[in-house]
Amino acid sequence: VTGPITRAAVVGATAWGTMLAVLLARNGVVTMLVTRTEDEAARLESDRENVRRLPGTFFPEAMHAAVGPPAIDPGVDLVCFVVPSHTLEANALAIAAAVPGGATLLSAAKGIDGATGRRMSEVLTDVLPDRPVAALSGPNLSREVADGLPGATVVASPMADLDALRVAFHSATFRVYTSRDIIGVELGGALKNIVAIAAGMVDAFHYGDNAKASIITRGLAEMTRLGVAAGADGATFLGLAGVGDAIATSYSPLSRNRRLGELLAGGASLDDALVSLDETAEGAKTVPAALGLAERLGVEMPITRGLHAILYEGVSPRAAVEALLGRAPKDESGA
Amino acid sequence: VTGPITRAAVVGATAWGTMLAVLLARNGVVTMLVTRTEDEAARLESDRENVRRLPGTFFPEAMHAAVGPPAIDPGVDLVCFVVPSHTLEANALAIAAAVPGGATLLSAAKGIDGATGRRMSEVLTDVLPDRPVAALSGPNLSREVADGLPGATVVASPMADLDALRVAFHSATFRVYTSRDIIGVELGGALKNIVAIAAGMVDAFHYGDNAKASIITRGLAEMTRLGVAAGADGATFLGLAGVGDAIATSYSPLSRNRRLGELLAGGASLDDALVSLDETAEGAKTVPAALGLAERLGVEMPITRGLHAILYEGVSPRAAVEALLGRAPKDESGA
Repeated sequence: VTGPITRAAVVGATAWGTMLAVLLARNGVVTMLVTRTEDEAARLESDRENVRRLPGTFFPEAMHAAVGPPAIDPGVDLVCFVVPSHTLEANALAIAAAVPGGATLLSAAKGIDGATGRRMSEVLTDVLPDRPVAALSGPNLSREVADGLPGATVVASPMADLDALRVAFHSATFRVYTSRDIIGVELGGALKNIVAIAAGMVDAFHYGDNAKASIITRGLAEMTRLGVAAGADGATFLGLAGVGDAIATSYSPLSRNRRLGELLAGGASLDDALVSLDETAEGAKTVPAALGLAERLGVEMPITRGLHAILYEGVSPRAAVEALLGRAPKDESGA
Repeated sequence: VTGPITRAAVVGATAWGTMLAVLLARNGVVTMLVTRTEDEAARLESDRENVRRLPGTFFPEAMHAAVGPPAIDPGVDLVCFVVPSHTLEANALAIAAAVPGGATLLSAAKGIDGATGRRMSEVLTDVLPDRPVAALSGPNLSREVADGLPGATVVASPMADLDALRVAFHSATFRVYTSRDIIGVELGGALKNIVAIAAGMVDAFHYGDNAKASIITRGLAEMTRLGVAAGADGATFLGLAGVGDAIATSYSPLSRNRRLGELLAGGASLDDALVSLDETAEGAKTVPAALGLAERLGVEMPITRGLHAILYEGVSPRAAVEALLGRAPKDESGA
């Protein structure tokens, strides 16, 4: 886009999708929240809040909800996708015909395509080519943003108008930073969910803050290795979309991925644990996707490999986590 | 040193000094814990534990306590300094005549010399020149290490025998990594206390996990900037002695620096807060020392500057923390 964003669509009435739509509308952007069903749109419109996902945050006047492709204004400047990663491609295909050629695409989904290892912005570009594409990621627990607590995020794109995007989302309590490293920002957001699962297991075993900080740090090291091999700037992982998001997700009681780790460590099966969590825990799908990408790029990811053994190969969480904490030490700079 | 470490002295019967002496002695290193007073040495020897600082961790047979220079064996391979930073120079001077020329020096003190900006290993080298010097730092809450919970640390030196040091301290639950970047490892350990004070204030104000992760991340960015300007490898700050220690210290209820931030945010004066904390909170002294170093190196440190205003210039914690969380955003890569 050139110039300010005045009309936007947000695909996905998730907690975070709803929150991003509210942030846009509060800034005067005419915003449509695009739902999956007619019923959902009608309910959101009559309640003027998302009672199920984000209760208490009322929709500004500039925000509305509607279903499917007709919800997309032909003059839209920005289309945001805030859906579970494994549904992103289908969601993009479903509305593809309605997305104008000049619109900027923005992914706030935190995952990696399981079959191909593509980042979410790459999936968007494959479905909707020749448009500027951006990603938004950071330590952003929806509930805290909704409560007006201070927070910050990163909007990244190699070619989109970052200043226009910053202005569209920014507020006094939700600071928007910008970056040209979309690879690092997207991989940070996706891979930190793996770290959070491991951190949840350390919590469940009461191994303490030294061990938790160590596993987050070793997790960041393997996130960074994979990111750099995939073309990211290593410094991005020291920023909000890397260490920032990894810390928030590994410590927050609100984090579903951290909670997934706790449930698995407590003896739950993956299926049972996912059922007991209300929304998708992206990390469970990110583990095999990241491992596939790591194998293609020749990167060693011991924590991700250990979690794969727990999630999909029947290895006991305690044995795997102890093995991770007891890895033979080596030079940190080469590890 | 060439070959294994067989005899060591640990100067400082702090909780962490006691723990490091116990770790060495458990590995068969004949270890003397060097106390400040005759009474203290006698009490430690008769109790065979440090009842005041580290209760419940009994001294192995190879460990003893004694006072002053005569406690240093003339055949000692390693002399560790585990005292408050502002007392390191005096402690080193007090035993200087007893430290043999071939001994490796190791600092586990986490601070910066206030007057000169020297790192602790530089202070040691000035007092005891021509000896290999190393630093040990990481996410190491003493109480957790004493309880046998899994943890890890980094031993760093440009020239000491890192393998000998690793073997001397290493155990199944206390993993020792090595690094040649002593500048980064020492500055990580010192500067993270500043971040922890800020994190404690965020806790006290109930700003949530997004804000806490954001301030830790911005704190790491300024730690890294100062470290790189001082000659460190930026990657060290992504390791255990950087982000690892910053996370553990910012989240642990055991952290005195985090607690100092909470007390200040609750309205306590610096003097009152320090009195109510049982041991030194190094961060209060590190703030002006780091700021002085940053000014000499031309580095911007907004969080450290904000804390200086709170600690020493009478600015209200809430106003300063809100200003920090509300800094005008910019490009992350240039921030």
